[in-house]
Amino acid sequence: MPSERVIKVGILGATGTVGQRFIVLLSNNPRFEIHTLGASDRSAGRLYPHAANWKLSEKLPNNVTTLHVKRCVPEDFVGCDIIFSEKSFMEANFPVFSNAKNYRMYDTVPLVIPTANPEHFAVVGQQRKEFNLNRGFIITNSNCSVTGTAVVLKALQLSFGPIKKAMVTTMQAISGAGYPGVASLDIMDNVVPFIGGEEEKIEKELAKILGAVSSDNLTIQSDSQLVVSASCNRVPVIDGHTSSVSIEFASDEKPSIDQIKVCLSEYRTMAQQLGCHSAPEQAIIVFEEEDRPQPRLDRMKDNGMAVSIGRIRECPMLDFKFTILIHNTILGAAGASILNAEIAAETGLI
Amino acid sequence: MPSERVIKVGILGATGTVGQRFIVLLSNNPRFEIHTLGASDRSAGRLYPHAANWKLSEKLPNNVTTLHVKRCVPEDFVGCDIIFSEKSFMEANFPVFSNAKNYRMYDTVPLVIPTANPEHFAVVGQQRKEFNLNRGFIITNSNCSVTGTAVVLKALQLSFGPIKKAMVTTMQAISGAGYPGVASLDIMDNVVPFIGGEEEKIEKELAKILGAVSSDNLTIQSDSQLVVSASCNRVPVIDGHTSSVSIEFASDEKPSIDQIKVCLSEYRTMAQQLGCHSAPEQAIIVFEEEDRPQPRLDRMKDNGMAVSIGRIRECPMLDFKFTILIHNTILGAAGASILNAEIAAETGLI
Amino acid sequence: MPSERVIKVGILGATGTVGQRFIVLLSNNPRFEIHTLGASDRSAGRLYPHAANWKLSEKLPNNVTTLHVKRCVPEDFVGCDIIFSEKSFMEANFPVFSNAKNYRMYDTVPLVIPTANPEHFAVVGQQRKEFNLNRGFIITNSNCSVTGTAVVLKALQLSFGPIKKAMVTTMQAISGAGYPGVASLDIMDNVVPFIGGEEEKIEKELAKILGAVSSDNLTIQSDSQLVVSASCNRVPVIDGHTSSVSIEFASDEKPSIDQIKVCLSEYRTMAQQLGCHSAPEQAIIVFEEEDRPQPRLDRMKDNGMAVSIGRIRECPMLDFKFTILIHNTILGAAGASILNAEIAAETGLI
Amino acid sequence: MPSERVIKVGILGATGTVGQRFIVLLSNNPRFEIHTLGASDRSAGRLYPHAANWKLSEKLPNNVTTLHVKRCVPEDFVGCDIIFSEKSFMEANFPVFSNAKNYRMYDTVPLVIPTANPEHFAVVGQQRKEFNLNRGFIITNSNCSVTGTAVVLKALQLSFGPIKKAMVTTMQAISGAGYPGVASLDIMDNVVPFIGGEEEKIEKELAKILGAVSSDNLTIQSDSQLVVSASCNRVPVIDGHTSSVSIEFASDEKPSIDQIKVCLSEYRTMAQQLGCHSAPEQAIIVFEEEDRPQPRLDRMKDNGMAVSIGRIRECPMLDFKFTILIHNTILGAAGASILNAEIAAETGLI
Repeated sequence: MPSERVIKVGILGATGTVGQRFIVLLSNNPRFEIHTLGASDRSAGRLYPHAANWKLSEKLPNNVTTLHVKRCVPEDFVGCDIIFSEKSFMEANFPVFSNAKNYRMYDTVPLVIPTANPEHFAVVGQQRKEFNLNRGFIITNSNCSVTGTAVVLKALQLSFGPIKKAMVTTMQAISGAGYPGVASLDIMDNVVPFIGGEEEKIEKELAKILGAVSSDNLTIQSDSQLVVSASCNRVPVIDGHTSSVSIEFASDEKPSIDQIKVCLSEYRTMAQQLGCHSAPEQAIIVFEEEDRPQPRLDRMKDNGMAVSIGRIRECPMLDFKFTILIHNTILGAAGASILNAEIAAETGLI
Repeated sequence: MPSERVIKVGILGATGTVGQRFIVLLSNNPRFEIHTLGASDRSAGRLYPHAANWKLSEKLPNNVTTLHVKRCVPEDFVGCDIIFSEKSFMEANFPVFSNAKNYRMYDTVPLVIPTANPEHFAVVGQQRKEFNLNRGFIITNSNCSVTGTAVVLKALQLSFGPIKKAMVTTMQAISGAGYPGVASLDIMDNVVPFIGGEEEKIEKELAKILGAVSSDNLTIQSDSQLVVSASCNRVPVIDGHTSSVSIEFASDEKPSIDQIKVCLSEYRTMAQQLGCHSAPEQAIIVFEEEDRPQPRLDRMKDNGMAVSIGRIRECPMLDFKFTILIHNTILGAAGASILNAEIAAETGLI
Repeated sequence: MPSERVIKVGILGATGTVGQRFIVLLSNNPRFEIHTLGASDRSAGRLYPHAANWKLSEKLPNNVTTLHVKRCVPEDFVGCDIIFSEKSFMEANFPVFSNAKNYRMYDTVPLVIPTANPEHFAVVGQQRKEFNLNRGFIITNSNCSVTGTAVVLKALQLSFGPIKKAMVTTMQAISGAGYPGVASLDIMDNVVPFIGGEEEKIEKELAKILGAVSSDNLTIQSDSQLVVSASCNRVPVIDGHTSSVSIEFASDEKPSIDQIKVCLSEYRTMAQQLGCHSAPEQAIIVFEEEDRPQPRLDRMKDNGMAVSIGRIRECPMLDFKFTILIHNTILGAAGASILNAEIAAETGLI
Repeated sequence: MPSERVIKVGILGATGTVGQRFIVLLSNNPRFEIHTLGASDRSAGRLYPHAANWKLSEKLPNNVTTLHVKRCVPEDFVGCDIIFSEKSFMEANFPVFSNAKNYRMYDTVPLVIPTANPEHFAVVGQQRKEFNLNRGFIITNSNCSVTGTAVVLKALQLSFGPIKKAMVTTMQAISGAGYPGVASLDIMDNVVPFIGGEEEKIEKELAKILGAVSSDNLTIQSDSQLVVSASCNRVPVIDGHTSSVSIEFASDEKPSIDQIKVCLSEYRTMAQQLGCHSAPEQAIIVFEEEDRPQPRLDRMKDNGMAVSIGRIRECPMLDFKFTILIHNTILGAAGASILNAEIAAETGLI
């Protein structure tokens, strides 16, 4: 695809929390232009500002104030080059970038965090064959709670070989539950030590993201050596998932803490090499302060597209432990889909 | 000591957060009577209600409204049978129950959580010999962040043998930092992934609490097999420390989840057998709900003296994982000191 | 009614936030015994602990753990002496004490805050005539946001004559909206300057509560001279409505600030004179500290049944201004209904 | 002064909360360049990033990372064209723009909110005469709690004549108290109904800002007809002061609500006419939604330099009431000083 053509975008679930974030993130994108917004039948036909209960502190971008919401059916999205989020649009031959959980673990569906494993796009050819498509496909991004850990572990894996064990305890923001989501009576002055299905997602998705594409590009093989144990908690934080993580490398030759810091700081990804608009300046930001990263101070680093890490230290039980932070509705959701699409555009998939 | 005699109590640091909690907890105690309140030289000489910036929602008990604050020197505490908290009062031959960190790791100083290891009182005789005391001694209680895990692990250890590994990630309340403590700008809409010295305390104190008194009652031997890795976080919660914990038993014969639940629910401790006033009805409360315990809802269980545990499940890496909650200024501080003193009184140490 | 008979209570909406509060407040009541709990058809037939999503930090009282929830129809409440909350039970000849808004402004329905205007019960005779009842009636209590101001203004009115103007700005707790109520994304780090219908309720209900029963006991006449202006805000507080209030007396002879403090501190009400179990020790607690009352510290004063007031000072525009605090789900809801019922029982209405 | 010259800026108190905000706001300013940063003697001599405990979520701007902090004495600020904040720099002949309270009420010191009353700069000539200065002067900006109300009332006054009465109840953010400022134990799940000195400041400063410069430009005359009554509360909000305000016009001819909305929406100020870099696009933004403005959603409108107003409605007691919101550390502090300085630069005062 000629790199200069404007790409027309359709967004499903456009009135929800993640949909609103998509709209803000795309408002200044030089390459992507919002063409169609879809939502529930109840919203269809109404002007977007009337249909959406706008909950972001960022202003509603001008370019959507005059758009009418459409139904989420392929015939209402004719003219869109790509579709953001879920459903049966792939089968209607649209390129789909999905933040939904449904297809993530399917063998020929890439589960891609753009600053971790975009090489998994390689199975799209096989996927098209299976579904008999020439233009459409589906690329998913991961659950927000796994995103930060996946990027860090991928960077470490590239430099120091496979990870054998990862113990992950999350402290997740309320915006991860959408709107209205978490009741204030449930979370003020409180911690909720359970988020349905989340621990299982971390344990499975992490293995797939750190896995490899088979040499014939036919399938993605999850990392079967990796043992992951996750404990997920909701805390009274608006945006930003923080995790305490301990890991063990498979190899007996362990890197030093300084080597780890250098590896993470210097980590460069395909998204940056391609010069994608939404790529973070640094995929991983390493903090030296003993009490960072913190969600309120650090979640917007590099426009919410960077992973922040700090407190890298030895673990008395495994090899190393540290604190990881990401912005759950940007790199953890809408931002990942958008950067995946930018990579796909730059590499000719669209 | 005849079990009916009223025991006169002196409280050091009486105007601080933990001191205030002591006063509330002792207000209805049938055995202990507040005799002297000590605080900084700045406060000494003033009426307690004027000297203290009362920060608890419980009413200031009537019995202290007319007390004048004293200096924290032994001569101002003549007539007290026991002293709560820290310092050189032990050397002045007072029985001291200390919530301060200073002496906790000393070999002949019991580090006791009353519902975990009161049998460690056995080294008090040796301690008196060393310091040449007939009546005085010092018994410490643990850091608030280790309390819940220690009680649970002690109960498991008694039934299923030694624990080999424990991975502990805490989400700690702001009241643990005293007053003024944590600035609101640091914690609102935020997580602070660092509490100075706390992780080291968990790693060391847990081993001592789970350790054994030598057969000659001369010293306490920390559990040298136990590997503990702790990650401590401050979250926007007023009272109640929540921890995500994973453990591995030393033995190859693992209990079932049901056996663990029965063991914890049926755990009875010396404090209860002695009928101590401040003993919880149940030392450990096991929750079956998938999203409990939660600090706001469960921290006051059994007047803040119980440990709550829930989400007991298998861990993909170690053996089991679960969520533990305690009230950090009651069982985690003032309440532990008081119940330690009640046990000491009932067993003739005072 | 012989003052010793136990009174059997039915509670409608028993699984909701206010219903849960009723159950806790009645758990130790010497006179009232919970007989029947009603809720939606979805809950009917289930054991109460299974039907209710218990959200209070107080333990679920033992006496309701074995009760099955009934439908909210009169035939399911046979045997109840009184009914708490709403609906058509009055027409079925039950004494009803309602926290719902529906009948509050009806001329022969008392709108009573028990520590403000229980003398309004006098119109119950006329109400029974109108509805052709011998035993049933309905007595309502006010919206939670008006409660504190009404009690204070009633006490002032009794001593210093009519109030001419009241400007009320509220800062209301999230529990006032029930469960799930306010979404956490709407209130964390935020103020919502609007609560639907609330300002109108304050303006109308205050005038009725401060009004008089006609000399023939046929009707309640709202205070038509009183001008009230209310602005209602929701703030991130769990329990406790705080209000900044300015008032002007009708009379040109103004009391001094000291006279106001004495008047409020010494205010005694029928509920106390009758020795009702749920009556506060002091109906109004006057604070001298410059930064009190505060919801977290003071909402539970006298078991949540007292009104707290502080910062009584001159107003540059009207006569005086001050800060008022009440517990919105206790004195502001369930507690008011219960104390109304106790007064009714003691005065022979039941 | 030629409008193209870069103006060198010195900032006092540069490590504090407001100082940090100055640095962020000036980082992209085309006209002003940070030349010298001053702080306490303890910080002097250190690199700024080491001396400051950076608490903003915005990144520390590159241009200050290599600056060393100076002492706050005039001789360390040689070369600066203007000084931001307080003290004796005016007497050393520097133009000073001060956010401190000390000189605000002095007759020949302008107390200026840049989008309200920049015409008060007219007394600077007389001030220079009094202090025998040729280049220096001091211009102050108001307390953050009065800013929003002052801008709105000034706009209304210009269109509809004098305001006679204003009743102001504030709900103020924690960042207004600086760092560490409010203890988290004091404000979580709480409202503090007192902020020392704040109510008096609102009552006095509002009258001065709405006052007039005498026709000979010798002094500023406070509006002596205006009666203001303020009640100040601290609420658990990070940034953004919200106020419930009721007002009465002096004239008997009242505008309609629609006229008020048009007046406020169309309000244009000198800062905008001069094309100042930091001027808001709209000085006052009028909301039609019934539950806006809200601090979390609206405080950053026009980069924190706009005043937001909503819920404009009739007041049963005075004429009209509404909700006002401003960003307390931007338009309420650092932003006001900067925009004052820009106006001064454009109008030749510097």
